[in-house]
Amino acid sequence: MSEGTSYGKAVLVVCDGLGDRPTVEGRTPLQAADTPNLDAISEAGINGLVTVIAPGIVPGSDTAHLALFGYDPYEFYPGRGVFEVLGADMPLNKGDVAFRANFATVDDDLRVIDRRAGRKGSKGMAKLLNGLEIDDARIYLENTTEHRGALVMTGSNLSRDVSNVDSHVAGSIVAECKPLKDTDAAKKTANIVNEFVRMSYELLNNHPENEDRRRNGELPANIILLRGAGSYRQVPPMSERQGFSTACVAGASLYKGVAKYAGMDVIPVEGATGKSDTNLKNKAEATLHALEHYDFVFAHIKATDSFGHDGDFEGKREMISRIDSEFMSRLKETDAYIAITADHSTPVSLKRHSSDPTPIVINGAGVRRDKVDVYDEIAVASGGLGRIRGLDLVPILSDFMGYYKMYGT
Amino acid sequence: MSEGTSYGKAVLVVCDGLGDRPTVEGRTPLQAADTPNLDAISEAGINGLVTVIAPGIVPGSDTAHLALFGYDPYEFYPGRGVFEVLGADMPLNKGDVAFRANFATVDDDLRVIDRRAGRKGSKGMAKLLNGLEIDDARIYLENTTEHRGALVMTGSNLSRDVSNVDSHVAGSIVAECKPLKDTDAAKKTANIVNEFVRMSYELLNNHPENEDRRRNGELPANIILLRGAGSYRQVPPMSERQGFSTACVAGASLYKGVAKYAGMDVIPVEGATGKSDTNLKNKAEATLHALEHYDFVFAHIKATDSFGHDGDFEGKREMISRIDSEFMSRLKETDAYIAITADHSTPVSLKRHSSDPTPIVINGAGVRRDKVDVYDEIAVASGGLGRIRGLDLVPILSDFMGYYKMYGT
Repeated sequence: MSEGTSYGKAVLVVCDGLGDRPTVEGRTPLQAADTPNLDAISEAGINGLVTVIAPGIVPGSDTAHLALFGYDPYEFYPGRGVFEVLGADMPLNKGDVAFRANFATVDDDLRVIDRRAGRKGSKGMAKLLNGLEIDDARIYLENTTEHRGALVMTGSNLSRDVSNVDSHVAGSIVAECKPLKDTDAAKKTANIVNEFVRMSYELLNNHPENEDRRRNGELPANIILLRGAGSYRQVPPMSERQGFSTACVAGASLYKGVAKYAGMDVIPVEGATGKSDTNLKNKAEATLHALEHYDFVFAHIKATDSFGHDGDFEGKREMISRIDSEFMSRLKETDAYIAITADHSTPVSLKRHSSDPTPIVINGAGVRRDKVDVYDEIAVASGGLGRIRGLDLVPILSDFMGYYKMYGT
Repeated sequence: MSEGTSYGKAVLVVCDGLGDRPTVEGRTPLQAADTPNLDAISEAGINGLVTVIAPGIVPGSDTAHLALFGYDPYEFYPGRGVFEVLGADMPLNKGDVAFRANFATVDDDLRVIDRRAGRKGSKGMAKLLNGLEIDDARIYLENTTEHRGALVMTGSNLSRDVSNVDSHVAGSIVAECKPLKDTDAAKKTANIVNEFVRMSYELLNNHPENEDRRRNGELPANIILLRGAGSYRQVPPMSERQGFSTACVAGASLYKGVAKYAGMDVIPVEGATGKSDTNLKNKAEATLHALEHYDFVFAHIKATDSFGHDGDFEGKREMISRIDSEFMSRLKETDAYIAITADHSTPVSLKRHSSDPTPIVINGAGVRRDKVDVYDEIAVASGGLGRIRGLDLVPILSDFMGYYKMYGT
């Protein structure tokens, strides 16, 4: 850096699955929401679209965040389970295999009734399964938020090369875990997974908690489905790659996990749940407070994605309005650079992620203010940023912040 | 090429460091300048933004021009010194090491007072150092424009893997040149550089020219700082890669050097200085004249960048107005394709290069005329070209010119 360089700070807000398609009266939930603060940030900033991974490639939340943090997921993706486990603050060591776990509901034939058990897990039932020994391996399980959990398998000669038990398809029989490579380690790990899933059903199906749930007309959480096998590896932290300190404000476990993987400090926030009941005002205060101590703060808001998965246009629209009034209203007071985008689109019409690019605005000292004055999927397309890739975001912010990399002279 | 193809010509105008940020009354120097001719070219053409190297990567002038000529700098960059030496018309052979040299001002402790010696070098003092022998190497030095110079080191077992003596930081002691690889060649070269820098101070500090400068209140040019070590390699010329003949109209040495490296003929132009006093009318005439004899003409205008480095908004604005009235007014009469862009942004607010994309317009027979009618950093963003990379430019121009490459049938 040359003489007189002054360094700025930046906050990256990711509203999960925010992007959408025209659905009600030709409008997206973002277009239909009441967003005076987002629009003001857009008006004062530079806008564009983000191809998070590559055009037409539907991003997972994990690979998408890696890209948004500047890590090429094709090079740095360790498997989703790793992020779930890191996000749950569980120990993970070299040789372990990590999984994303779902509390789910199956019938007597092990046919999947709801792969999310009515979006309700159980810390108590997780404890029952925690510490199980299968073959020479030991299993650690924790229930994180709602139906979600993280699982670590420790033991000798284990492998991440095994298939998912959670097939993402309701109505089908629980899938068998299969080795994806012809190795002893993959075969052994698949056998342990299958044995664990079988035991989880045996131990949970008639558990008193589940009897209570059935009596209350709720779905029992009577099996654990595993997916996203991953194995830990150390990657260079953002502080080393970019030169600035980083922190994360998030409710949901996965995002804390990706942030930790990238070397961020995770700031605990009272009432940040990763659900629609999350305390957005607390998250805004935590974000602004973190900016006093860190150069780069990543703030994640999950519920927009969940409403997309549920196909709930009104819910998504209202959540966006709340984000605007309870989070963006406060955030816009910072002097730091503000970047607001999504990790992917989750159109309510599809109830899944899609590759439609996500809107982005960057606001702060010196950015080229374009003519866009509304923050939505259509308006930003004619903005001054054009269409960038997810991987481009951190380098662009780094240059704005003064941590630039020069190539040539 | 298929039957009946007719070939067009093209001129690529690079206004160095033209891109900027909103600075005075929310406008960039380009927005504030009086540019009826640039605007007319934009209105008749197709517009967009150029990411010269990659988003967030701050381009050097040398790597940027390589990319704009269609050479991936990550593959073809030989080190800046090579371009300086080629631009100064100095012989450079395999095994030589080439450097960019600066006349600079240091105090008695060798602390850098001005790394550009008041932007004033000396052809006479360069001659004094030209031909020095150090170890078994011989040094050739020339003063090119202002404080700038080029240096060739010839001898046995030399290496380009040595660090810069010019640290770009005023106020610090002259840096020691260090080997960047643990080889005898790198160590030997570093020792020769250090010895040369020491000798340059001894021979220049009390030189009569410098005594005169001190008496006149000017900064003495009492040391030579070296940077950008490079070694020559032959690359396939543009004529071979694209199929058309190429020429360069430029004042500053570096740009002539990159052009020569890419195989262009350099057209000498009376009064082209690479400074703000450059004769823009002569350059316009030289460019139009070159278009009669060559298929592709690269015209470079330097001073926009220098005003950016000096943080001089008014100077940059006026220079752009002059480019419009003295150069673009004449250029727009050509039938050739016209592409106008910059190698990078040099915001006056930063006094350094930045990664902000540069505006581009392409004008000529058959191009899709978009709705952009003003040539500036904001307006072009909504144009028909979108956001392209520097490497994309020559292939796009080649197809317009008829020298297209077809992939498949």
